[in-house]
Amino acid sequence: MTRPNRPDLPDVPWIVDADVRAGYGVDASFGAQAPTDFEVVRARDEADVVEVLRYAAATGTPIVPQGGRTGLVGGATATPGAIVLSTLGLNDIVDVDPVQGLAVAGPGVIVEEFKKACAAEELFYPPDPASAASCTLGGNVATNAGGLCCVKYGVTADYIAGLRVVLPGGAVMTTGRRTAKNSVGPDLTGLLVGSEGTIGVIMQVVTKVIPAPDPALTALGTFPTLTAAAEAIVALRRDPHPPCLLEFLDEASIAAIQSLADYGFPQGCAAALLVQADRPGHVTQDLARYAAMLTQAGADEVAVADDAQEADALLAGRRALHVALEAQGPQLIEDMCVPIRALPQLVTRGREITAAHGIEVTMSGHGGDGNLHPSLGVDPRDPDQVERGWRAFGEMVDLALELGGTLSGEHGVGRLKAPFLRRQFDNAQLQRLRAIKAVFDPAGLMNPGASYSAP
Amino acid sequence: MTRPNRPDLPDVPWIVDADVRAGYGVDASFGAQAPTDFEVVRARDEADVVEVLRYAAATGTPIVPQGGRTGLVGGATATPGAIVLSTLGLNDIVDVDPVQGLAVAGPGVIVEEFKKACAAEELFYPPDPASAASCTLGGNVATNAGGLCCVKYGVTADYIAGLRVVLPGGAVMTTGRRTAKNSVGPDLTGLLVGSEGTIGVIMQVVTKVIPAPDPALTALGTFPTLTAAAEAIVALRRDPHPPCLLEFLDEASIAAIQSLADYGFPQGCAAALLVQADRPGHVTQDLARYAAMLTQAGADEVAVADDAQEADALLAGRRALHVALEAQGPQLIEDMCVPIRALPQLVTRGREITAAHGIEVTMSGHGGDGNLHPSLGVDPRDPDQVERGWRAFGEMVDLALELGGTLSGEHGVGRLKAPFLRRQFDNAQLQRLRAIKAVFDPAGLMNPGASYSAP
Ligand SMILES: Cc1cc2nc3c(=O)[nH]c(=O)nc-3n(C[C@H](O)[C@H](O)[C@H](O)COP(=O)(O)OP(=O)(O)OC[C@H]3O[C@@H](n4cnc5c(N)ncnc54)[C@H](O)[C@@H]3O)c2cc1C
Ligand SMILES: Cc1cc2nc3c(=O)[nH]c(=O)nc-3n(C[C@H](O)[C@H](O)[C@H](O)COP(=O)(O)OP(=O)(O)OC[C@H]3O[C@@H](n4cnc5c(N)ncnc54)[C@H](O)[C@@H]3O)c2cc1C
Repeated sequence: MTRPNRPDLPDVPWIVDADVRAGYGVDASFGAQAPTDFEVVRARDEADVVEVLRYAAATGTPIVPQGGRTGLVGGATATPGAIVLSTLGLNDIVDVDPVQGLAVAGPGVIVEEFKKACAAEELFYPPDPASAASCTLGGNVATNAGGLCCVKYGVTADYIAGLRVVLPGGAVMTTGRRTAKNSVGPDLTGLLVGSEGTIGVIMQVVTKVIPAPDPALTALGTFPTLTAAAEAIVALRRDPHPPCLLEFLDEASIAAIQSLADYGFPQGCAAALLVQADRPGHVTQDLARYAAMLTQAGADEVAVADDAQEADALLAGRRALHVALEAQGPQLIEDMCVPIRALPQLVTRGREITAAHGIEVTMSGHGGDGNLHPSLGVDPRDPDQVERGWRAFGEMVDLALELGGTLSGEHGVGRLKAPFLRRQFDNAQLQRLRAIKAVFDPAGLMNPGASYSAP
Repeated sequence: MTRPNRPDLPDVPWIVDADVRAGYGVDASFGAQAPTDFEVVRARDEADVVEVLRYAAATGTPIVPQGGRTGLVGGATATPGAIVLSTLGLNDIVDVDPVQGLAVAGPGVIVEEFKKACAAEELFYPPDPASAASCTLGGNVATNAGGLCCVKYGVTADYIAGLRVVLPGGAVMTTGRRTAKNSVGPDLTGLLVGSEGTIGVIMQVVTKVIPAPDPALTALGTFPTLTAAAEAIVALRRDPHPPCLLEFLDEASIAAIQSLADYGFPQGCAAALLVQADRPGHVTQDLARYAAMLTQAGADEVAVADDAQEADALLAGRRALHVALEAQGPQLIEDMCVPIRALPQLVTRGREITAAHGIEVTMSGHGGDGNLHPSLGVDPRDPDQVERGWRAFGEMVDLALELGGTLSGEHGVGRLKAPFLRRQFDNAQLQRLRAIKAVFDPAGLMNPGASYSAP
């Protein structure tokens, strides 16, 4: 059945086909389920967004801003009675300026496309979530996305120079800078980065772009123990020219990747590290040094990719991990970040926790950042398993916090992790965040229930 | 006469000596004058700061947070009835961690000392305002300070990972991260960066630190025309390994520097550019390329510093510019940042504006960022000159905005530029900033009259 548009707002592009509409109801998070009563507008331009936010204010309608729907924490999942505002059509790349070192694009631009447009000018926009082929610039800003490059280049927040935002009620606000520097007033850009749709709709993103590095080459080290791998990470982080990628995989993760296709990973080790160098003019030299450091830390085997093809295959394997795990069954994915030196404890105690609850776990992620994604195999149709899964999940949150970490390194809080937020933020901090939100969104219409806005 | 302490708050370290106290009344801004009725507390620890902010809330006393008093916009100048809260005693360097890539320090740490402590671990904290020998980390955060390194390394905002802040009423808030990544909630760190004392007292600063570059070498190019110098800047910014310093000096600036002492600058050119390279292993090679680019753009003469000593002298000369100008008489200092390509217009039209008002001007600054500091020779004792000076100043603000720029690139707004803020921010934006301030400071006690908080 085709649901009718809202007749009191006829002139925006509603998605009328029920099946198509349903597709916009959920993101990529564990157990996501859309309500039946929601509508979808796929904005064509700023005027559409302004119209919808005006209408929302006038009618008290909740708004769920939405990008590529690759979010893993339910932040883009429709809520009852909401209008999902898809930004996928707002995909203009406005400018890539090598002199100013800035690029300007719409929120719906696919991150990979944006990176390509920058590369065409010999510039580099570093953020590279494994989902880069389908997530959007706006979604990356709203979640402060990370990726594989962060160990050298930092996260999305580090590359956002300014924003254009449509606020509840339809007012347009610009933040940040279009010049190389700006010291006028507190910069509100940072409030929107990581805001997960709770403050306004990001309409335009001004990013920093930097000179392009050399094509990266890859080395792989396999380790007999977790501690040896962790030692290698510590050593690599101290290097005067640290790697541009430093990924950690446990045995189960490698097995999952290899069972999807042969990506060239060896099997049967306690842990593996994937390391990349991209420093202009020094790639081979740096990689040889990293390889020596892996050996020094106790690696069983160290393989330096002989060519770009071999290096690409390893990387492709790492990028396919999420899909490989999903192929084995639904996954409840953690995303904690702890101090680098606490990695072995996170892995060992994380495994104890999941084992105690009878849950399968694979441990992998951005080892060089202390940012792991323990992936819990949980069947959402089995209520008992789901319950044990969430219990293990919560205990792992506590573990990360106890180790001096945070409950999200890059995925955000969304609806999935909102119930755990009180373990990290005290009441006063939650109240401050809500009061700041209220400055922009007094009626609480923007993405209700996401992150700190959840009651 | 020694003013009494506030008897109702006996247990904090008041500055009781009237002369000493008077010294804490003003920062380094043009025409700064302290009121007679203010007190000074020089905090020893967080408990002192909490005590003072509790007292302030209970009694409605305004608070002026203060660092090294090198501010150029009057942000740290005492206001009537205020308690100036000096953070100079809060100068612990708590941790410099090469594995985590973070350092932790008190707000009163002198920036140069902090840079040295990082260098001792072979790490680099880039921000380097020319005032680094006397300004504080907290002041740099509160103004989002820049410096000479920004063209390659960015501003203070780019290096602040997290903060600890005492809020009005005495509550303590932590923001940001202590791990490599964190994606939990909007990060309030950015609200405090550039807040100029209007939100809370920065108690601890967590900075990013990066691997140390090679010692820099310097080249100097002198140009027959402004346009040629501007072309060189554009070319250098497009280089795949752009310089770590790119300073612009006009003839009058060079003359001022050389009249202070012989720093090795040639004279009698329309403009000069100072360029540095610091890329590990490539300093000589990069500098030779930059020198060729200067020539290519039309430089009359290009001198490559033969050794570290010569390079240091040129840099010392540039760093002495402020003192050199003050030696010629009091200066009203502008700090606008425009798109790089608009630099020639800023200089040419800026000179026309000052000439029309009969004001002497020198044009210099961080050319590679489009961030100039036109310096207006204005005698504060001559009311007519002062009036003309401010008129020229205001017209230059308008010029910067017309060119797509901002009214401050690095000094902030403070009290001096607050009257001009409405030219950059509309009413709605000012209201938003004030409403956010009110979340933390409902009584409006934090640095009243500074920046956006001025009525
Ligand atoms: C296979 C796979 C691999 C992944 N790998 C990574 C990884 O390596 N690193 C990483 O960080 N994440 C990763 N993710 C998670 C996800 O891709 C990121 O969170 C991404 O930033 C989401 O972008 P999106 O465009 O899909 O946003 P959505 O999922 O559509 O939305 C995410 C959040 O952003 C808000 N939002 C979206 N657009 C806007 C806008 N214009 N204005 C305001 N709010 C908006 C939404 O309301 C929601 O709260 C992965 C996900 C998958 C499925
Ligand atoms: C010779 C000279 C050269 C300079 N060169 C540069 C330059 O190259 N680049 C540049 O950016 N600036 C430069 N400046 C300006 C000045 O040094 C900077 O603005 C600097 O950041 C001020 O730091 P401070 O510690 O002296 O702070 P103050 O002058 O004491 O205070 C500045 C502002 O910060 C607030 N503040 C200070 N500490 C705290 C705290 N702990 N918590 C909350 N608020 C606080 C104050 O309320 C005030 O609003 C220069 C100044 C001089 C005199």
